[in-house]
Order: sequence, then C-alpha cells, then structure tokens
Amino acid sequence: MRYFMVFSYDGTDFKGYQKQPKGRTVQGELESVFKKLNGDKEVSVVASGRTDAGVHAINQKGHVDFDNEIDCDKFLNSANSMLPEDIYIKEIKPVSDNFHARFDAIGKEYIYQINMGEYNPLERKYVYQHNRKLDVVEMERAMKYLEGTHSFKAFTKSDDEREDYVRTLSQTNLIRDLKDVNKITLVFIGTGFMRYMVRNMVGTLIEIGEGKRRSEEIIEILQSEDRTKAGKTAEAQGLFLRNVFY
Amino acid sequence: MRYFMVFSYDGTDFKGYQKQPKGRTVQGELESVFKKLNGDKEVSVVASGRTDAGVHAINQKGHVDFDNEIDCDKFLNSANSMLPEDIYIKEIKPVSDNFHARFDAIGKEYIYQINMGEYNPLERKYVYQHNRKLDVVEMERAMKYLEGTHSFKAFTKSDDEREDYVRTLSQTNLIRDLKDVNKITLVFIGTGFMRYMVRNMVGTLIEIGEGKRRSEEIIEILQSEDRTKAGKTAEAQGLFLRNVFY
Repeated sequence: MRYFMVFSYDGTDFKGYQKQPKGRTVQGELESVFKKLNGDKEVSVVASGRTDAGVHAINQKGHVDFDNEIDCDKFLNSANSMLPEDIYIKEIKPVSDNFHARFDAIGKEYIYQINMGEYNPLERKYVYQHNRKLDVVEMERAMKYLEGTHSFKAFTKSDDEREDYVRTLSQTNLIRDLKDVNKITLVFIGTGFMRYMVRNMVGTLIEIGEGKRRSEEIIEILQSEDRTKAGKTAEAQGLFLRNVFY
Repeated sequence: MRYFMVFSYDGTDFKGYQKQPKGRTVQGELESVFKKLNGDKEVSVVASGRTDAGVHAINQKGHVDFDNEIDCDKFLNSANSMLPEDIYIKEIKPVSDNFHARFDAIGKEYIYQINMGEYNPLERKYVYQHNRKLDVVEMERAMKYLEGTHSFKAFTKSDDEREDYVRTLSQTNLIRDLKDVNKITLVFIGTGFMRYMVRNMVGTLIEIGEGKRRSEEIIEILQSEDRTKAGKTAEAQGLFLRNVFY
C-alpha cells in the first residue's frame, strides 16, 4: 500500500532532507519513526526532492509504502507525537501504487525571504538579512528575464554533471510585505529546480538590487551557461519549499 | 557616563534575562561583550526588568555605565558583531546619570501569540500551539475584566512575598491575524508586571476560551488574591516583551 504525504519542517537543525551516514536529516527522522510504527521493519520515504541544510519546507510532499493498510488518522497522530518538534506531517492518505512523489512532480514553488531593515534576532533563521536597501524594481525586472524555458546551467552547482539543464520557470514574483517596507519575498514557480538553482538566482538578484549588475545581464548569464558568470549562492535560511505540484 | 540602550533577543536558548551562576543568559552575554569593549573592566547592564527562560524581547530597554565616553555608532557596530546572533542592540545613546532603566519604567507592553490552527514547525518557538478552537469573543470579554487597577496577587507566582500586588493594566487587546483566522495575539499594557503575571493571565484566558470557565470569573479570581483560583501558567515561547515606556 502506497501513501501520499504532505509535511513541513524547519530546516535549521538538519543537514538537509536526504539521509546521510552522519548527521541529522529529515528523511532519517521520518524513516526512524515510521519504522517503529511499522513493527520495526525498515521504511523508505520518497520526497518530491531534497532540500539542502538550513532550507525549510512548508508543503514538502512524498510517498511511503507499507505492507499493510494503515489507519491514516491514527498513524498521523502517532507519527506526529513521535517526531521531533521541527517536523510535522500535515496529511497522509492512500494513493495509487503508480504514483511517485519525485517523478510525478510537475512543478514546485520556492520562496526566498529578505529583510533589508533592522536585524531581528527572532527571525534570523527564516530570513536573509541584507543591511542595505536593495533596488527592488530592478530586481523585479531581472526576475522577468529569468522567466521562461532556458538552460539554467549558469545557476546550478558548477560541478553538476547532468546533461539537461533546461527548465521552465513559469512564474516569478517579488512580493512587498504589507506591514514592513523593508521585507520582500521572492517567489519562483517552475517545472524543476536543480541544486542551488534558486539560491544562485537569488544571489545574482541581490547583486542586481545592490546596483553591481544590471537586470539585463540575466540574459547573458543564462546564455553563457557558465556558473562563474552568475552571482554568489544566497544563504540557505531565507529559502522555503512552499509547494509541490502534481 | 550612563548610556540608554534598546535591544531585542530570541529567548529560546537563554535561561532568561538575568545573570545566573550557571547557564546562558542575556545579561551574561551582554556584560561579557561590554567588558571586552571596556578594556576588560567589568560592566553592569541594568534592564527594565527580567524576562524568564524562553520569553522573547523585541524592545527591551536598559542602561549601562562606562568610565569614559563611547562613540555610540562604533560601539553599536562592535557590540553587535561580537554578540551572539540571538541578541541585537538596536540603539545606544547617552542618558542622564539620574536615569534608571528599571526604576524609571512607567509601563510595559507584553504580547502573547497563540495558534489554534495546524502546528507549524517553523513557528514553534514563537507561538503557543493550541490544537482546539478557542472562544475568542469570550476571551476578549475576560480581558476587559482584567483591565484597571487591582491586586494581581492571584496571577503571580504563588510564593511571591512582596507586599504590594496592586498594578494597573491600562489596556488589553485581542488582535486577530489578518491573514490567518487561527492566529491571535493578546496584548497587555500596564504599569508593571510581576513574575509569571502575564503567563498566568493568559493561562486563565485560555481556559475561558476553552469554555472551562466563564469570563466573569476573572472578577472573583482578582478578588480572591489566591493563585490557586487562577489558571495554569501559559508556556513561555508565546510571550514577547514588546515595549517599555519611560
């Protein structure tokens, strides 16, 4: 029996989503609790994709197989009471055996939070602190150049060896906080995101916002397919996987 | 030379504001950094009052004395770069030697955040999670009974031996979150707050919101001056010292 699940986590104290020989991971914690609830039999959790250390997820999605049918409400309560407080399963329900949380994902939404105002120790793990004003209009313009179907090779991890770097960024938005003019949220919706892709786009957008680059440079960077042409990788803590689409 | 300062901190990883022989405290961290910036000479920081373990502060205020004049901008930058990331000094400026951060405080504002909706691991350290709906109208009514000048003995730490339990709660508000119907913030503005007073009022208000008590019981509880008549002490993580008035 295959089950579909929606879960959220605070990425701060994890070495990332994906299980590793050493270090605390989201997958590791989930599988350890699920094993206990599965008569001590190993369970594999397949997520829509991994997130890196310090990156948060609001609606991560995944699937998990159990030999026997489970009572979803009961399982949800038990699992949540056993999981550490920085992971929460929002929903679990039966799904077809053909469903695959990673291969069937047709899109994802990431958001990146930036604070240009006074540093707030209470938000430090959930927002990127930038101590100078950014030109948000120029950043917004640059985001529009990122939209569309392109090779995003210049924005991915430089040692990435995969062949197909083409992705479609279907929508971008720069949202101004209604209550705080110093806070902005960058939204990226697309068919798929390679490792560090959002953070590399954000790092480049920040340099544009600082006036170090013009927004039109995005076109050249995309065409170059050269990681060294893009900006720095933005810090992890501002990034949230907000949704996965099937 | 006396200096006035405004600072914020994330209470999560502190044993509270006040320095203790053991354990990490806000005062301890501040004094340790200030000592380094003061030629290794001990410095005392006097805050408007202490906050307990896990309680946050957005605009805590205090004073500190230095033998010599300091360059406030430079000092602010140095101190903030040396302080741990969960404390931030927002402002430091010269003040009269007669000013006293604790004795001169004429009022304080505390807020308490409650989430009645789905648990969010990303907010767990900054909001009290209540998994059932609360009757917020009844809570709001109860808060109005708390307003005014009364003995708040029933709401303070039961072994408190001080003589005068009379305080004035000049304003209370129950704020509904504009974007999330499941989130509320309780606001308390008053002349002074004794230890656990806000958390004991909130614990009682939660029991009223749950329908376990009627709002009018507040009158009897206040009159009783009996700690056992009031509700439980609400958890620390939802509480923020938002402002101190002079």
